[in-house]
Amino acid sequence: MNPAAASPPTTSTRSITEVPEFAIKAAELLRKTSPNFALTMQEANYIVSLMRLVQFPAGTTLFSAGDASNTGYMLLLLEGDVSVDTGNTGGASKVDISSIGPGALIGELALMDGSPRSATCTAISPVVAAGLSSGGLQRLIEQFPQVAIKLVIYIAQSASDRLRSLSEQLQMYDQITNNLRQEIAQLRLAAKR
Amino acid sequence: MNPAAASPPTTSTRSITEVPEFAIKAAELLRKTSPNFALTMQEANYIVSLMRLVQFPAGTTLFSAGDASNTGYMLLLLEGDVSVDTGNTGGASKVDISSIGPGALIGELALMDGSPRSATCTAISPVVAAGLSSGGLQRLIEQFPQVAIKLVIYIAQSASDRLRSLSEQLQMYDQITNNLRQEIAQLRLAAKR
Repeated sequence: MNPAAASPPTTSTRSITEVPEFAIKAAELLRKTSPNFALTMQEANYIVSLMRLVQFPAGTTLFSAGDASNTGYMLLLLEGDVSVDTGNTGGASKVDISSIGPGALIGELALMDGSPRSATCTAISPVVAAGLSSGGLQRLIEQFPQVAIKLVIYIAQSASDRLRSLSEQLQMYDQITNNLRQEIAQLRLAAKR
Repeated sequence: MNPAAASPPTTSTRSITEVPEFAIKAAELLRKTSPNFALTMQEANYIVSLMRLVQFPAGTTLFSAGDASNTGYMLLLLEGDVSVDTGNTGGASKVDISSIGPGALIGELALMDGSPRSATCTAISPVVAAGLSSGGLQRLIEQFPQVAIKLVIYIAQSASDRLRSLSEQLQMYDQITNNLRQEIAQLRLAAKR
């Protein structure tokens, strides 16, 4: 366990509405979703009222890939940048996936299915984020399902973006391995001469 | 455009409830979701009542990566297997992502954000699927948001599984490129001797 790993925002933080600057920013970022399922300002503000303010110094591990003990919340990044990598799971070395900034969600998929974290996320710079716990999501679903569905669609869209970017990265790796294999074939041929 | 590409189920198919065998199967598969957000039989049946039955012979291209014209529906696989690859986008060669079977969703992310298809899906064997159009999803959201949210969570979980599997594949590729680079270094060293 990384000593700097984040605690769940439900136990370590205060409501984001206590800091209006960040509450407004969170609502604005939530509203930047697909036009088909856009949140009204009132709906975004309601979601924000369920969120906790969390802050991490640069270098903090927010989530560790494979961690199944710490899946009860997701974060909406408000300030700072976070690197996402595969972690060192199964003895394989870690591979960078992406670097994300304000508006990005992290930890949102494990929140819904309780499965282990799929990636390791590390704060590159000081990070301010809005945390939503699984209890908060559950309350939203029960009280305002029409609002909850827009949030869950925002989550699915975020996953969709990441799938596209991973898929492109896979193609790039495939191209690199093909090039390396050709180089090896040429070196072997040269060695035989 | 592949001549065997699928037409939207809304124009080419009949309601799945006309074939009870497949309607029951679709409802059962939909209910295999996370215990936290499980659909009741009645809820699953309601979703199924909005679905169209679609069948494709082996070899059909169901979706093409990058296609932005054909994003108005998703499919729940009921029978048969489908291969998923990156397509030949941007001149890069296609890379296999996975092979999926009954219970898997395809085309579900583009359905929500209208963005181009992220992968190419091809029927390996004859495929039977239940298609849900964006209109059907919209109707579900308006009439039964509590049910719609469970479906959207099922969709997000499916994306989550795919993200994990892509992430593992990326690590594997990274390992392969490291091995190939080492081999090249050794061949170069041997050539100098």
